[in-house]
Amino acid sequence: MQVKHTHKIEYVHGYAADELERLVGSAATLETLLHSDVTYPAGSLVLEAGCGVGAQTRFLLKRSPGIRLVSMDIAFHSVQRARHAVGEMARFLQANVYAPPFSHNTFDHIFVCYVLEHLPDPLQALNTLKTLLKRGGAITAIEGDHGSAFFYPETQEGLEVWRCLQRLQLQTSGDGHIGRRLYSLFKESGATDIQITPLPVYCDPSRPEMMEGFADKTIVGMLNGIEHEVLARKMIAPEIWRKGIRDLLNLAASRDGIFMYTFFRAVAKYE
Amino acid sequence: MQVKHTHKIEYVHGYAADELERLVGSAATLETLLHSDVTYPAGSLVLEAGCGVGAQTRFLLKRSPGIRLVSMDIAFHSVQRARHAVGEMARFLQANVYAPPFSHNTFDHIFVCYVLEHLPDPLQALNTLKTLLKRGGAITAIEGDHGSAFFYPETQEGLEVWRCLQRLQLQTSGDGHIGRRLYSLFKESGATDIQITPLPVYCDPSRPEMMEGFADKTIVGMLNGIEHEVLARKMIAPEIWRKGIRDLLNLAASRDGIFMYTFFRAVAKYE
Repeated sequence: MQVKHTHKIEYVHGYAADELERLVGSAATLETLLHSDVTYPAGSLVLEAGCGVGAQTRFLLKRSPGIRLVSMDIAFHSVQRARHAVGEMARFLQANVYAPPFSHNTFDHIFVCYVLEHLPDPLQALNTLKTLLKRGGAITAIEGDHGSAFFYPETQEGLEVWRCLQRLQLQTSGDGHIGRRLYSLFKESGATDIQITPLPVYCDPSRPEMMEGFADKTIVGMLNGIEHEVLARKMIAPEIWRKGIRDLLNLAASRDGIFMYTFFRAVAKYE
Repeated sequence: MQVKHTHKIEYVHGYAADELERLVGSAATLETLLHSDVTYPAGSLVLEAGCGVGAQTRFLLKRSPGIRLVSMDIAFHSVQRARHAVGEMARFLQANVYAPPFSHNTFDHIFVCYVLEHLPDPLQALNTLKTLLKRGGAITAIEGDHGSAFFYPETQEGLEVWRCLQRLQLQTSGDGHIGRRLYSLFKESGATDIQITPLPVYCDPSRPEMMEGFADKTIVGMLNGIEHEVLARKMIAPEIWRKGIRDLLNLAASRDGIFMYTFFRAVAKYE
């Protein structure tokens, strides 16, 4: 299969082993929230575009047993890992979201999660994916918005660490604030029915599993994954970075720390 | 009844007629979201502290028919208006939240909405209110967090207008970012069971009633209410202010504008 690279795709989080564990652990913590309304009828042919290491794939299959799932990703090693983790329940292939190797009117539904935020041209991706949908099908997209995050207590260094994430994503490729743009992107792609649902993740000491699974492992894990790049680009002094990371980790250790982040789920149909 | 003014209470939004209409209209738009889980058993004695013009009072009564409701506010004219609007269904009185004229162990439940954010010492208010609770009772607080807001498309002037609101509330009294502090405040006040629920308000063109009722009337209405004060304090150039307000109003008029804001509801019990 030939994959046309019409755009170079940089993945800000990298492909290190820690990062892959982070993604899988994060998926488990957030499953109930993100996947709650994502179910497809048995027999449906579903495309997961940008499956990465398969972190969401298992939940798609768990919540929609009986679907025929095709999961693709641009990164060969991720596809291998996903295939290894999930097995024969889905068909995995390496493919570029801008040039998927499928005919028009092929899929009943298309699912993308944490994908559009990393693309230099998410609109082109939607314009491509929508042609693969059968009439009446829908694209479901789940994306974050780094500008939605806040925490308490707030320290200057913690804020600066967070801003590094936002600036790095702007400097490399993608848009860390894509959550707020989902309506606009789907509208621009010609969708006729767009339902956006905000999915807030709120962590405080009364929810220790969220504090550990999300604030610590997912969020600080993500920040640890970009440390090397951020410091190499001299975006922040190393001691400020380390203090900020400590402050964010302390949120979970403190008696009254909170962390808040909002994901968005879009379900868009095309006439 | 003697009301001790232990703290001067400035109300950043003022008491103009437009502002009162804004509060009542906003309450209707947000009722389903904010009050969804606020119900008290018939016969309960409930205190609404900081009832203002009674915007929330009617919803308390509607959702919990049969309660005995006492609604108080520091502002005499607001209490008069609330009494006029709601009638005999609640007992209204003018009183200071720091020195309420009630005995300990009086109320089954206490409800505060958009109150703590305006107080110079919200912890003292909670420490006072909790003494009025009967054993097993709870305080329910609903508050916003101006730092949770974002919108798309984003303009520099729109952002500057929004920052004026945040800075004005800091300069006068209160904390416009109190939503994220609710857990901490209730913990500090000695609550033993604290449940915080984020209540996101998301507006896009698929929800025109929210765009009009919340983004336009509630949010831009609130900003219009502080314009005089913001300009008098020279916090922003008048032409920047006006451009920013136009940009925010244009969100609702555009084909793809969104506005997002998160309220928080806390339900806290004391042993």
